[in-house]
Amino acid sequence: MSESNQTPSKADETELLQLRQEIDQLDQEILNLISRRAQCALRVAEVKMKADPGQAVFYRPEREAQVLSRVMERNPGPLGNEDMARLFREIMSACLALERPLEVAYLGPEGTFTQQAAKKHFGQWVKTKPMPAIDEVFREVDAGAVQYGVVPIENSTEGVVNHTLDTFITSNIKIVGEVELRIHHHLMAGPNTNRDKITRVYSHQQSLAQCRKWLDAHMPQAERIAVNSNAEAARRVQGEWNSAAIAGEMASELYDLEIIETKIEDSPDNSTRFLIIGAQEVDTSGADKTSLVVSMRNEPGALYHLLKPFNDFGVDMTRLESRPSPSGNWTYVFFIDFVGHTRDANVQEALSAIRKTAVEVKVLGSYPKGVL
Amino acid sequence: MSESNQTPSKADETELLQLRQEIDQLDQEILNLISRRAQCALRVAEVKMKADPGQAVFYRPEREAQVLSRVMERNPGPLGNEDMARLFREIMSACLALERPLEVAYLGPEGTFTQQAAKKHFGQWVKTKPMPAIDEVFREVDAGAVQYGVVPIENSTEGVVNHTLDTFITSNIKIVGEVELRIHHHLMAGPNTNRDKITRVYSHQQSLAQCRKWLDAHMPQAERIAVNSNAEAARRVQGEWNSAAIAGEMASELYDLEIIETKIEDSPDNSTRFLIIGAQEVDTSGADKTSLVVSMRNEPGALYHLLKPFNDFGVDMTRLESRPSPSGNWTYVFFIDFVGHTRDANVQEALSAIRKTAVEVKVLGSYPKGVL
Repeated sequence: MSESNQTPSKADETELLQLRQEIDQLDQEILNLISRRAQCALRVAEVKMKADPGQAVFYRPEREAQVLSRVMERNPGPLGNEDMARLFREIMSACLALERPLEVAYLGPEGTFTQQAAKKHFGQWVKTKPMPAIDEVFREVDAGAVQYGVVPIENSTEGVVNHTLDTFITSNIKIVGEVELRIHHHLMAGPNTNRDKITRVYSHQQSLAQCRKWLDAHMPQAERIAVNSNAEAARRVQGEWNSAAIAGEMASELYDLEIIETKIEDSPDNSTRFLIIGAQEVDTSGADKTSLVVSMRNEPGALYHLLKPFNDFGVDMTRLESRPSPSGNWTYVFFIDFVGHTRDANVQEALSAIRKTAVEVKVLGSYPKGVL
Repeated sequence: MSESNQTPSKADETELLQLRQEIDQLDQEILNLISRRAQCALRVAEVKMKADPGQAVFYRPEREAQVLSRVMERNPGPLGNEDMARLFREIMSACLALERPLEVAYLGPEGTFTQQAAKKHFGQWVKTKPMPAIDEVFREVDAGAVQYGVVPIENSTEGVVNHTLDTFITSNIKIVGEVELRIHHHLMAGPNTNRDKITRVYSHQQSLAQCRKWLDAHMPQAERIAVNSNAEAARRVQGEWNSAAIAGEMASELYDLEIIETKIEDSPDNSTRFLIIGAQEVDTSGADKTSLVVSMRNEPGALYHLLKPFNDFGVDMTRLESRPSPSGNWTYVFFIDFVGHTRDANVQEALSAIRKTAVEVKVLGSYPKGVL
C-alpha cells in the first residue's frame, strides 16, 4: 500500500504548510477589509465635521451596541461570541481613534477595575484619565475636559455605590452606557506562608459568604475574619504568617502576595457593574435600558403609586433602590432601571403617569444594554 | 441651480447612511474571514497534536513576528502600522486561546508595567500570573507551570535589571522574544496641592534628568530631590503639601495623586525593554536577535579578543554589558546582544571563533526582534 509508506509526519508537514498559506491569505484579506472599514470611518467623520463643525459627535453608543450585537448573532464560530465581539470592539476602537482619540475619565486609585471597565467598553485605543473621586469624574465630563466618564454603580461584594447615585441627583450628566466586569476571588498569602498552616482567612463579609463552600471543603479549620474591604484583607495578610486573604488579582499584585488558589467563588457570575456617563443623549439601539431618579412624598401608598404605571404599561423594571433625599424634606428618592428607551410609546405613557404623582422625575438616560 | 436647493444635511444624511451600510457589509466579511482563520488555527492544533501529542507547541514566536511584520509592510492605511499590528496581535491571541489558553508568569508588584508588556506581546487573551520575584518567574517556566515568562531587562530610568541578567547565568531557560513599552513621565501631587506653591519635586535621579528641560522652564524655583524609585517619590508626596513627584500613571493611581501635567519628559522615546522567556528554541523569523553570556579570563586584551570575531564576520552587536562573575574566580561575564540567528552562517563562524578564547559561551536564545 503506497499510502502507508508515506510517513505521517511528511503528510502532516504538508498540511501545516497549506494551513499557514491559507492563514496568510486570510490575513491579507482581513487587512484590506479593516483598512476599508477605517477609510469609511474617516469619511463619516468628514461628513459630520462638514455638517456641524462645532458639535460633531463621533462616538455613538447605540451604533456600537448594534454592531456588537449583530456580530454576536451572526458569528459562525469557532470563536466564542464574546471573543468575536471583543475583537470587533478593538477594530472599532482603532477606527474611532483615527477620527478623534476618545478621552475618558474614570474613578482612579482603589478602582483599577474601573479602568479595566473603561478599556472593556471603549477598547484599547481609548485614552483613560484617573480621577481621585466619583464627583470629579462627573465634573471632568461636565467641563468637557473628557468626552465620557466611567464610574462603578453596583458591586456584588460592596453593594450599590451610593456616592455615584447621589452625584446623579445634582448633576446634569447623562448615562450613555453600562458595562459589567466579571470579578474572581482568589485565596492569597505572603510568600512565606505554608498553605497547610493557615489558621485565619480575611476578607469582606460578602466575599467570605461567596466562597463559603470552598472554605468549608478546603479550610474548615481556619477562622474567617470579616474586614472592611478585600484590599484591606490583602494588606493585613502581608504582615502575618498564618493568614490568607480572599481578594482580586489586583490586590495580590499591590500587596505582593502569592495566589494559593484561583477562582474559589461558589458562583461563577460574580460581577461589578459600571456606568458610562456623558453629555449626549443616546438614540435607540433596539435593546435599551433607562435609568430614572424619582422623588416621592412620604405618604401612604407612595411606592405603590410609583410602581403601578410600570405594570400598567408593560414596562419591565430591573432595579429599584431607595435613598434618603438630599434635601431632607420628608421625601424619598428612588433610583429605577427599566428595560426600554424614553422614545418607546409605552415608556412615555408610564413616565407621564408617574409624573402625575411624583414630586420630581429625572431621566438619567436611555442607553444600550451592556453587550459584552 | 437645483444642486443648491438640496439641503446639505439631507445629502449628508444619505451619505452617512450609505457609509454605515458599507461598514456593516465590511463587518460581515471581516467576521467570516476571522472565523475561517480561527478554523485554520484549530486545524493546525489538531495536526500538531496528532503528530506529537505530548510535545506539541502551539505558540511559535517566529511565526507571529512574521505575520505582524508582513501586516505592517502591506498595510495600505489609513490605520497606522502599529495600530494594525495591534489588531492582528489580538486576532492571533483569540485564535491561539482557542487551541489552548496561553499562560504566562510575570514579575508582579512593582512591575505592573511587566504585565502590560505581557499583554502587549501575547494579546489580551493570554492568562497572566504575577510572581513576587524575577527568579520565581524563571522557576515557574522551568517547572512547566506556565509556558512563558516576562521579565524586565532594561529600563531607561533604572538601567539594566541586573537581577534578570544574573538569573540567566544559572538557568537553562531561553529567551524567546523581546518587547518594548514606551513609558511616560507625569508630574503629580496630592489633591490639596496648589501647583503654584510646589517647592519640591521628588523622583528617581534619571527621571529628574529626563525631565530637566521641562522643570527648568516651568518649575525653576522647585528643589529637585532624588529618591530610590519613582514609586517611592509618589509615596512620599502623598503626605506633603508643597511637593510633587515625577512618576508613571500607575503610581498616580496607586498613591491617589492627581496628574498636574502629562508627558513632561524631554525625549519622547523613553522606554523599557522586557524579555519573553521559555523552554523552547525559536526558528529564524528573518529579523532576529541573539543574546549570549560569555565568561572571559581577566587578562590583557580579553575584551578585544571577544569583540574582534563580531567585526571579522560582520555580526552587528547591539548591546554589551559586563557583570562580575558569580563564581568570583577572576573572570568577567559579558552579556552580548547582536543582530542575527545562531543558524546564520556568519553568526556560527563568529561564535566558534569566540569559543576558542572564552572560558564559557552560553547562548541565551535567538528570537525575533520586537515588532511592536
